[in-house]
Amino acid sequence: MHVIVDLCVIPLGVGVSVANYVAECQRVLEAAGLSYQMHAYGTNIEGEWDEVMAAVKKCHEVVHEKGAPRISSSLKIGTRTDRDQSMQDKIDSVHEILGTRPE
Amino acid sequence: MHVIVDLCVIPLGVGVSVANYVAECQRVLEAAGLSYQMHAYGTNIEGEWDEVMAAVKKCHEVVHEKGAPRISSSLKIGTRTDRDQSMQDKIDSVHEILGTRPE
Amino acid sequence: MHVIVDLCVIPLGVGVSVANYVAECQRVLEAAGLSYQMHAYGTNIEGEWDEVMAAVKKCHEVVHEKGAPRISSSLKIGTRTDRDQSMQDKIDSVHEILGTRPE
Amino acid sequence: MHVIVDLCVIPLGVGVSVANYVAECQRVLEAAGLSYQMHAYGTNIEGEWDEVMAAVKKCHEVVHEKGAPRISSSLKIGTRTDRDQSMQDKIDSVHEILGTRPE
Repeated sequence: MHVIVDLCVIPLGVGVSVANYVAECQRVLEAAGLSYQMHAYGTNIEGEWDEVMAAVKKCHEVVHEKGAPRISSSLKIGTRTDRDQSMQDKIDSVHEILGTRPE
Repeated sequence: MHVIVDLCVIPLGVGVSVANYVAECQRVLEAAGLSYQMHAYGTNIEGEWDEVMAAVKKCHEVVHEKGAPRISSSLKIGTRTDRDQSMQDKIDSVHEILGTRPE
Repeated sequence: MHVIVDLCVIPLGVGVSVANYVAECQRVLEAAGLSYQMHAYGTNIEGEWDEVMAAVKKCHEVVHEKGAPRISSSLKIGTRTDRDQSMQDKIDSVHEILGTRPE
Repeated sequence: MHVIVDLCVIPLGVGVSVANYVAECQRVLEAAGLSYQMHAYGTNIEGEWDEVMAAVKKCHEVVHEKGAPRISSSLKIGTRTDRDQSMQDKIDSVHEILGTRPE
């Protein structure tokens, strides 16, 4: 089952600056060989369900190992059986309707 | 790794009424032997990471099987390494501060 | 426009225990006269859009005033124009299908 | 109060293709003069609380007007009182740690 998710990991108990922890998660996604794209409030990730979810678990593990005693993540999970659709397809569909082009 | 999640499964392409699909997910959670509690905008689930996530995957599978061609779920994921905390503990902590009691 | 939301406020920079801040938000909702129900990973709130959103803003304000320098909230927002539906209606629909009764 | 949000609007009862509705929301954000950036699972928006929330409400209104009888949105809301931070600042912080540059 192919999945497109959006992951936002929030470490608690480590102060207000969370960029170091977000960076760790980016390294996890890179090492997992997944297709991903960070934005200002999370990261889009695409792949097979089990591989993507293994990476989400790994993110929690490394953020805890890096010192965060508590984590609260938000994960949006999109699956469909009617047709294949990539993250880029979703963005392209909207730009096509708007007559705009992604930068 | 113990986890408390909040799952909200939204089937697309099956009209406005989604209660049948939510009911299917409740059956999945019951069959999985997990501790869970439905509310008006999702379901709290508690257990070991792998078991909870297997149930979330199963929910997507059964909702697709039941006819939904597309699903968009929201999942909040809470983990902590500093201490054990159940779903009820979280609720009790707030009620204790407020001097109120859950009904 | 009637709305059912689910609000989860996460204060950052104040340690791992967030119950005091959640309790402040419950007081805001109570003072606003809104219908609400806390669960283990957020709070369901029901009412007119502007009143509910004013309460959400007030929650951010009081949590900052109470000392949290940073907040990351999750809000699910449900609206429908086809019919009236309360938070309890949503729960009842699922229990009816399952043949169960809320405790 | 400055806010960075991430908005994902899901229309129900209109089939599986939602790009037309997402495009309507992009038009709302453009017309509102807000800073925003669409990604594959939502749109980051930045601005003053009241203006951003007025745009979120407008999105629900136009999506209903365009024919969706039911909407379920997800909104992440970030505020901070310790310092100013833009959407780009958040992304830059992570890229700086990783030693990478956004494309």
